[in-house]
Amino acid sequence: MPPASYNFRMGAITSQPSRSVGQLTEEEIIRRVTANLGQACPPFPAGPGGDCAIFEETVARKFRVSTVDSVILGRHFDSSTAGALAGAKLVNRNLSDLAAAGAIPSDALLSLLVGPDVDSEWLEDFARGVGKAAHQFGLHCVGGDICRVQAGTFAATLAVQGFAHRILTRKTAHNGDVIFVTGKLGGSILGHHLSFEPRLAEGEWLNAQSTVTACTDLSDGMAKDLHGLINPTQDAVIDLTSLPISDAAHQLSKADGKPAIEHALQDGEDYELLFTVAAEQADLLEANFKKKFPLTPLKSIGVISHGTGLIKSRADGAVITGQGFGHFA
Amino acid sequence: MPPASYNFRMGAITSQPSRSVGQLTEEEIIRRVTANLGQACPPFPAGPGGDCAIFEETVARKFRVSTVDSVILGRHFDSSTAGALAGAKLVNRNLSDLAAAGAIPSDALLSLLVGPDVDSEWLEDFARGVGKAAHQFGLHCVGGDICRVQAGTFAATLAVQGFAHRILTRKTAHNGDVIFVTGKLGGSILGHHLSFEPRLAEGEWLNAQSTVTACTDLSDGMAKDLHGLINPTQDAVIDLTSLPISDAAHQLSKADGKPAIEHALQDGEDYELLFTVAAEQADLLEANFKKKFPLTPLKSIGVISHGTGLIKSRADGAVITGQGFGHFA
Repeated sequence: MPPASYNFRMGAITSQPSRSVGQLTEEEIIRRVTANLGQACPPFPAGPGGDCAIFEETVARKFRVSTVDSVILGRHFDSSTAGALAGAKLVNRNLSDLAAAGAIPSDALLSLLVGPDVDSEWLEDFARGVGKAAHQFGLHCVGGDICRVQAGTFAATLAVQGFAHRILTRKTAHNGDVIFVTGKLGGSILGHHLSFEPRLAEGEWLNAQSTVTACTDLSDGMAKDLHGLINPTQDAVIDLTSLPISDAAHQLSKADGKPAIEHALQDGEDYELLFTVAAEQADLLEANFKKKFPLTPLKSIGVISHGTGLIKSRADGAVITGQGFGHFA
Repeated sequence: MPPASYNFRMGAITSQPSRSVGQLTEEEIIRRVTANLGQACPPFPAGPGGDCAIFEETVARKFRVSTVDSVILGRHFDSSTAGALAGAKLVNRNLSDLAAAGAIPSDALLSLLVGPDVDSEWLEDFARGVGKAAHQFGLHCVGGDICRVQAGTFAATLAVQGFAHRILTRKTAHNGDVIFVTGKLGGSILGHHLSFEPRLAEGEWLNAQSTVTACTDLSDGMAKDLHGLINPTQDAVIDLTSLPISDAAHQLSKADGKPAIEHALQDGEDYELLFTVAAEQADLLEANFKKKFPLTPLKSIGVISHGTGLIKSRADGAVITGQGFGHFA
């Protein structure tokens, strides 16, 4: 939901030259963006103002964790999206990747490509959204750059560094491991894609559990992202009846006639965690997770088995693809 | 100069659909880019392939140094520029910022915005240029992302981490300090902007000299970047006769009638180091630098003095602006 201060319509692109960034100097754009990043920006030299940001490492964790992601006007949000929501999305989708690694956020670099007709107040609001989401999760915006590009264009890239105690990736599941997923899936387009919270606390806790063998976040949709968890000699065998389906997926299903479970399997931008646990420890892990995170839904949805790189339905062995699966086609 | 293998014309944008990235899947684009980054990419999980790159810090230096910069088709290079040159420029302009901090390169994240009509072979060549320049200076390309954008567009952003023994920035010059510059200035547009080497070795050495008080790199032109070295209570007083002027600046001057010294002051993308040294140690520093780097031109060009935030000519006190200066106007 847009902040309450949104009592007028302000889009990313303006037709009023007086509101456009085209009339601002590069220094002024940088000043406004930095000011609106607010508390997320540490003071110089650890923050903006020099050729580089320079700071002492303070996080006592063995592994540095590094990721980058962008949001682009017309692709990840549209011109009616409030700047603060687009900015928060940029931060949160990066932090969802850190969550999958079980890392805690450290510092980030923000790069903006800005057309001359981008609304200057919208841009400030975007920076506020970045700053607020970053500050909420202890992420420091240490620097960035701004480039002018052609009219109608806005793209923002955030490169994020974090730290973790151990290496947790999506490629290390073993045959027999139980597959879990947090949250409820599908229908993100109805709003979740702009207003989710990255599962950082859950990810950090999972990183500390040695029985968790692999983890990824759901960004392209369960049916696609499950492939990231398995290698060519493994299958993921899913109990479709156990899939947690969001209210939004049901709502979309009513509107488009496509089964809600297909939305849960195929829709992108869930930003939930998908992870595997050694079979004999799965029940204990599940119980401990639910004690630790009583508000975060957690479901066991299937197992990793010896196979040929496929996602299959446990009930009838039907192969599930990103485009839907056998008995729904 | 383009590599010898360039025996046919290959631009960034293609009119042949069969050569365009529009016909490739996202996975295939990532595979090709990663393959062409080559040795610069460490193996998974320290390199591409997961939600994040994850690696153990191995550099025993106290301060992490962080910077980000982009190259955009039509702004930092044109559609006739060889991909490898554009890719090398992306790396080298970031490493020039690290050089200014006296840092050694560590790791980088590469973000690409790619229109459907970008030539796929040009893109592979771009990735080779990134990989080769990165590998040359020990920079690891640990991850990245690729987004599709509208036709005619190519933008690449590199976020770089390095390490330094002490904090060296551009904002710490004292009154009386002597100003030095490496290299020769101006006329970068004739080729230098695509084929320079970042002054990493010089920067690292300067970082280790306690008499060096401030450092920046020349990216926007001497007249503008000098402002970065001073605060509002200081002037930079420059001996214009001592400015090192490049052959390219003289060449441009002949073509456009503008004095070569104006090119040396105003042209951007020199990527040289501009630094200050405590006055009583300036001669010794200069002698030691020339012993250590006999092939790198070094000139003392002026001093920092008490003032009002201006760049002035030592001879007559004329104020030098980014747009030229008094007696040339």
